[in-house]
Amino acid sequence: MDDLKRAGLKIYQNPALFCFAIDSVLLAWFAKTAPNDRIVDLGTGNGVVPLLLYGRNREIGKIYGIEIQEKLYRLAVKSVALNKLEEKIEIILGDLKDAPAILGKGFDVVTANPPYRKKGEGRLNPVPEVAIARHELLTTLEDVVATATKLLKPRGSFYLVHLPERLPEIFTHFTRYKLNPEVLLPVQPKPGENVNLVLIKAVKGSRRKLEFLAPLWVYEKDGQYSEQVRRIFEGEE
Amino acid sequence: MDDLKRAGLKIYQNPALFCFAIDSVLLAWFAKTAPNDRIVDLGTGNGVVPLLLYGRNREIGKIYGIEIQEKLYRLAVKSVALNKLEEKIEIILGDLKDAPAILGKGFDVVTANPPYRKKGEGRLNPVPEVAIARHELLTTLEDVVATATKLLKPRGSFYLVHLPERLPEIFTHFTRYKLNPEVLLPVQPKPGENVNLVLIKAVKGSRRKLEFLAPLWVYEKDGQYSEQVRRIFEGEE
Repeated sequence: MDDLKRAGLKIYQNPALFCFAIDSVLLAWFAKTAPNDRIVDLGTGNGVVPLLLYGRNREIGKIYGIEIQEKLYRLAVKSVALNKLEEKIEIILGDLKDAPAILGKGFDVVTANPPYRKKGEGRLNPVPEVAIARHELLTTLEDVVATATKLLKPRGSFYLVHLPERLPEIFTHFTRYKLNPEVLLPVQPKPGENVNLVLIKAVKGSRRKLEFLAPLWVYEKDGQYSEQVRRIFEGEE
Repeated sequence: MDDLKRAGLKIYQNPALFCFAIDSVLLAWFAKTAPNDRIVDLGTGNGVVPLLLYGRNREIGKIYGIEIQEKLYRLAVKSVALNKLEEKIEIILGDLKDAPAILGKGFDVVTANPPYRKKGEGRLNPVPEVAIARHELLTTLEDVVATATKLLKPRGSFYLVHLPERLPEIFTHFTRYKLNPEVLLPVQPKPGENVNLVLIKAVKGSRRKLEFLAPLWVYEKDGQYSEQVRRIFEGEE
């Protein structure tokens, strides 16, 4: 059980299966929500993104997290119960492609920290839960984008964290599914280093021009967390 | 007549029509060429990119610049003659879409600093030459990408400078025309500011993953040119 560093929220982790990483923390910070927003987190894992979203906005309407892996689903359900958030966060066991059939549509916000690697690219992790979270074995980028569009209301926002190498595909799928990318935030491990993560906000049916932000970096050159990331962790930003 | 700051190369500019800007200097630096390379610069304006490419690689095979505007074409021809580079650089008066019909194919490198703004977006410059260079009145991004593909040999490189807000379209067209984006270099006006220019290398038919570089910035916070840009101007990098 780990502390989420946010006003007493706790989460169950199983390091053998899957632990949340900086990607989830950045995604939950980058995703802006309003009071009463209805939200879906696709491929929610142990539920870290719903918990952090709630931690940032306790006026939130309801957050659904959908997870296909039963062991991770159970961890997420346990964490929600531990925090007594059953009214605010509901975890669903299922394939994210079925989320629109299960949950309906008209959502304000959809978030996703999907598997980053294509099937067949690089070595699969021997632990099936980790392999499924990292490789597109049970879902694809296109599934994620198509599902997000179906769930969102017009002008609803989709927040995605992914690898920069997938950006051409991401933009191509966004175009196909009428999600207009409005904000791109590159993330560097350290200042001056190549970007190794991108955060993207896309809005369904909008026509606003893409804003390409200055990168944020996770560590300073001396290996300490950067001031901005430290503030994000602490919930000060 | 201006000094290109590169071993004696000079260029004719007409400030009333169009002057080259930092975009062209960055594009010519970003575009890597090898000895004997055959190159086409699409929408060459006053010929600044061919001149700078030659300045960086005097072993270059031949550079063709195609320009639809007769006044700019004449300036480019005069600059090539002034530098006695008629053997190395040939300027063609014409629509870039006709470049494959005029020049054939199998080129090693194609470069483009095309109009940035869509037709109907923002105010048109009252000087037609400037309006045509800045707005997509006579060409479109898709024309540029489609033409680059036709001109390139397999594994040939296309170097493009454009606005970040056009990135989703750029990647969508690249996917359609089998140009694989390999390198993305964001450019900031100053460190910490939003990206306002992107340099992209795409390779015809490659499968390499996109490398997303750390941004370079043009000015330091005090308004002086950054060290990197000063070195690019001086030809030291």
